[in-house]
Amino acid sequence: MRIKLHTRFQNSAGERVRIVLNLKGVAYDYVAAPPVTSDAYRAINPQGLLPTLEIDGVTVAQSMAIIELLEELFPTPSIFPADPILRAKVRGFAQHISADLHPINNRRVRKYLETEMGQSEAAQMAWYRHWVAVTFAALEAELKRCDAAASFCFTHQPTLADFCLAPQMANARRFDCDLAPYPLLVAIDARCRALPAFAAARPEAMPDYSPAG
Amino acid sequence: MRIKLHTRFQNSAGERVRIVLNLKGVAYDYVAAPPVTSDAYRAINPQGLLPTLEIDGVTVAQSMAIIELLEELFPTPSIFPADPILRAKVRGFAQHISADLHPINNRRVRKYLETEMGQSEAAQMAWYRHWVAVTFAALEAELKRCDAAASFCFTHQPTLADFCLAPQMANARRFDCDLAPYPLLVAIDARCRALPAFAAARPEAMPDYSPAG
Repeated sequence: MRIKLHTRFQNSAGERVRIVLNLKGVAYDYVAAPPVTSDAYRAINPQGLLPTLEIDGVTVAQSMAIIELLEELFPTPSIFPADPILRAKVRGFAQHISADLHPINNRRVRKYLETEMGQSEAAQMAWYRHWVAVTFAALEAELKRCDAAASFCFTHQPTLADFCLAPQMANARRFDCDLAPYPLLVAIDARCRALPAFAAARPEAMPDYSPAG
Repeated sequence: MRIKLHTRFQNSAGERVRIVLNLKGVAYDYVAAPPVTSDAYRAINPQGLLPTLEIDGVTVAQSMAIIELLEELFPTPSIFPADPILRAKVRGFAQHISADLHPINNRRVRKYLETEMGQSEAAQMAWYRHWVAVTFAALEAELKRCDAAASFCFTHQPTLADFCLAPQMANARRFDCDLAPYPLLVAIDARCRALPAFAAARPEAMPDYSPAG
């Protein structure tokens, strides 16, 4: 089985997938994708969004769909808790980031705000920080109700919830978001960063990394 | 097992879950939720988004997490194809709607455009239609590459892809989006609407329905 991940170093949805591939010890080829609006990229992913997983020439879009597939193909170690309700809570936490935060703050949306709505750089930054604050407050509140002894979002092992959280925390720092109100998120993120699977998935560790962004 | 779905008639993420409950023949209590910003609602769902599933007093947020849980608890009939790659394609199609279209066009986002960015009703409508057009064009392109004989998005039975598509088509009509460029989506949606599980999940069939919206 030949696995390729079409992504880019800054692509945080791709970073989730890279963490999963690392944790499961799955070998893959990292492919620095061409512009998502190019014909070359649309040919492998009509959605025009990153990342795309390619398995023996067959392509799959959407990080959350890719990760569920990887869990099915390579079940050990699992990225979910064994209990169905806890697994649902993990997926619900992850989706709150992957569906209700990340797409709203995505580059294509900010570009629309600028070009079609004439919004200044400052207004775009306020937008970005607003959705981070709304979402992180909810995530922090959710974790406050959970097992206080858990090292990661819900459990003692990192799960899909953590794979979605960690790249988003890095983004929030890059955009100067105030993280002081979220001590649980900050502590969990620090534990994630210390794990090799997370560290090896960071933008700075990617072959196409450039400090210019 | 006592199942409650906290939703509202216009909540299209909730409509996805209602279709699944209907298809699987799972009995549930429909609870018309109070305002999502209220303390009463935040107590059951800190994310402040609809819907919430409650099973014997335990709550789960996010429609996609709820649906995966229902599939695990009530596996027959399945809402996914048996083949793992096809299942991933279904999830990828569904996520493109649930993550990259629906949250961007959600009411709370349009409200921000209005109150924080001073965008007119016309500008908000252009925003709404822009993201529908971008997403539907990609979905149509994706289906064009698939099994032409399939009655639904990828297969001969409706799956999660169809549960996400149908409510979004109704929303697009409500917002006067031009659907002529998407003949495959329109045909599939018509087949979905003819099924009792979809019809019984429609906003008009809900106990809190009001034509005023």
